[in-house]
Amino acid sequence: MLPVLVVHGGAGSIPRKNEEPYSAGVQVAARAGYAVLREGGSVMDAVVEAVTLLENNPVYNAGCGSVLNEHGGVEMDALVMDGHTLSSGAVSAVRRIANPVQLARLVMEKTSHLCLTAEGASKFARAMGVQEVQEESLITDYARKRWKQNLDRDSNPVECQMGKMGTVGAVAADSEGNVACATSTGGMLNKMEGRVGDTPCIGCGGYADNRVGAVSPTGHGEAIMKVTLPRLILFYMEQGKSAQDASDEALAYMWERVQGLAGVVVVDPRGGWAARCNSKQMMWAAAQNDVLHYGLQAGEHFSQPLQ
Amino acid sequence: MLPVLVVHGGAGSIPRKNEEPYSAGVQVAARAGYAVLREGGSVMDAVVEAVTLLENNPVYNAGCGSVLNEHGGVEMDALVMDGHTLSSGAVSAVRRIANPVQLARLVMEKTSHLCLTAEGASKFARAMGVQEVQEESLITDYARKRWKQNLDRDSNPVECQMGKMGTVGAVAADSEGNVACATSTGGMLNKMEGRVGDTPCIGCGGYADNRVGAVSPTGHGEAIMKVTLPRLILFYMEQGKSAQDASDEALAYMWERVQGLAGVVVVDPRGGWAARCNSKQMMWAAAQNDVLHYGLQAGEHFSQPLQ
Repeated sequence: MLPVLVVHGGAGSIPRKNEEPYSAGVQVAARAGYAVLREGGSVMDAVVEAVTLLENNPVYNAGCGSVLNEHGGVEMDALVMDGHTLSSGAVSAVRRIANPVQLARLVMEKTSHLCLTAEGASKFARAMGVQEVQEESLITDYARKRWKQNLDRDSNPVECQMGKMGTVGAVAADSEGNVACATSTGGMLNKMEGRVGDTPCIGCGGYADNRVGAVSPTGHGEAIMKVTLPRLILFYMEQGKSAQDASDEALAYMWERVQGLAGVVVVDPRGGWAARCNSKQMMWAAAQNDVLHYGLQAGEHFSQPLQ
Repeated sequence: MLPVLVVHGGAGSIPRKNEEPYSAGVQVAARAGYAVLREGGSVMDAVVEAVTLLENNPVYNAGCGSVLNEHGGVEMDALVMDGHTLSSGAVSAVRRIANPVQLARLVMEKTSHLCLTAEGASKFARAMGVQEVQEESLITDYARKRWKQNLDRDSNPVECQMGKMGTVGAVAADSEGNVACATSTGGMLNKMEGRVGDTPCIGCGGYADNRVGAVSPTGHGEAIMKVTLPRLILFYMEQGKSAQDASDEALAYMWERVQGLAGVVVVDPRGGWAARCNSKQMMWAAAQNDVLHYGLQAGEHFSQPLQ
């Protein structure tokens, strides 16, 4: 079986002229996560490494670069899941943490719980020696500008949401058939304080099961939640569908039931993978067998040798 | 089709001599929720009414009577879901609210989000005119006694968890095939501050879909989450299984994968229903066709005319 790592940098709609940094970022993350796998790291090591890089990259809506809530603050959600044990860790509405995905992993590994929220998550971070950062260090000028624009009474919140790529995530499978997923987000632009979206919710923000595969989604969180999109895709795969067919069928079902737009990255334990969306765009990259694959527009697929 | 309402008052293990108030409480809640249905109320009205009564009853671990967290505080989770629209509302780690289930319904009906957490949920409650209560009014002498016992270094936390019934919940179907679910809990005894369990997580704390049915679970939250138990049961029902067979198969799967103990109440849109557990006990009651059904030990089933 061929190890594989697939990342996404969010679904949405950005102009062609702005796409270069988004594309570069997912390619760097895919390379780095894949290198972890190749050097013998676990699938969990690999997805956390890839998502950490995406959190640290200010162009994405996760970690530094997160969108701002209604009060101009940053509240982030993240999830990891290990397909071998079905163990999972998540944080919701956490503040002043540079890498929520790493904190989510600590919740999985160091507590008997699966999710910690808000101030309780911050206290846990302190107890684990995770450095708190200034909130300002997570806020970009662009994020503040969009927040202010969206405060205008005549702004179109749906259009504003689509001006930037969203949530980031990664899935990986190793040569032994282990799978894992990780997802991280700043959530929705100008969301209410305390809003929790799909990301920290197991089965919605991701799911991983060595018997079937792993999924990380991005897009309209509330729609993803209503159909538990990642869990749904894996049910379709259990019934014999490929990663791609299962993704397309689940995205079509989500559209039919709740008119939601989203994208997903998916792996199966045999190294099969897919990056699919029913939105116009999803920024993604995949690394397998010394080839780097990537794309942005729905259906687009470029590839080049992985140095 | 026959309207039906089924409630649970938690899975666990209580001595026979203590069971009377638990049994009385679920019977009262089932009667009241069923009366709402019979008087033309919606399935959402019915499940919220039933769960509100269970929250107000100090014997259950929800609302007044909630277990205490590691610091002796009360943090509660609740979820509602409407099977017609797949709309859902939830609150997590909310404090000083007498009826979290009603606040979860307000999240569904008054915001564009599906879940609000911690202080953000409290601010929303204030904005909606929901009265905050003194934390003391939610804490029973018994809850404080158990919290103190469990602080002992040589206490057995698993045994302590089982000393009291848990989470409460309800599912309902009306004569037109609409279904809904509601679940509410104080969580795990001596949990970490900010711990979020299965309850506010859609697909884990409940799921409702008019095409299939509705489920509310109780038991070991982390195990329920790892297999997204309610969503799993509904997948099995979609494949043609009855509510009872789907529940038994999903509970057996949860035991096989993650050794979890739990119980569920389930309805389908044709009025079929089940109350099943793989724990020794789950306190439940159901009302349909002028008969009240109830039980505590696994497999137990009493019935009497509904006055």
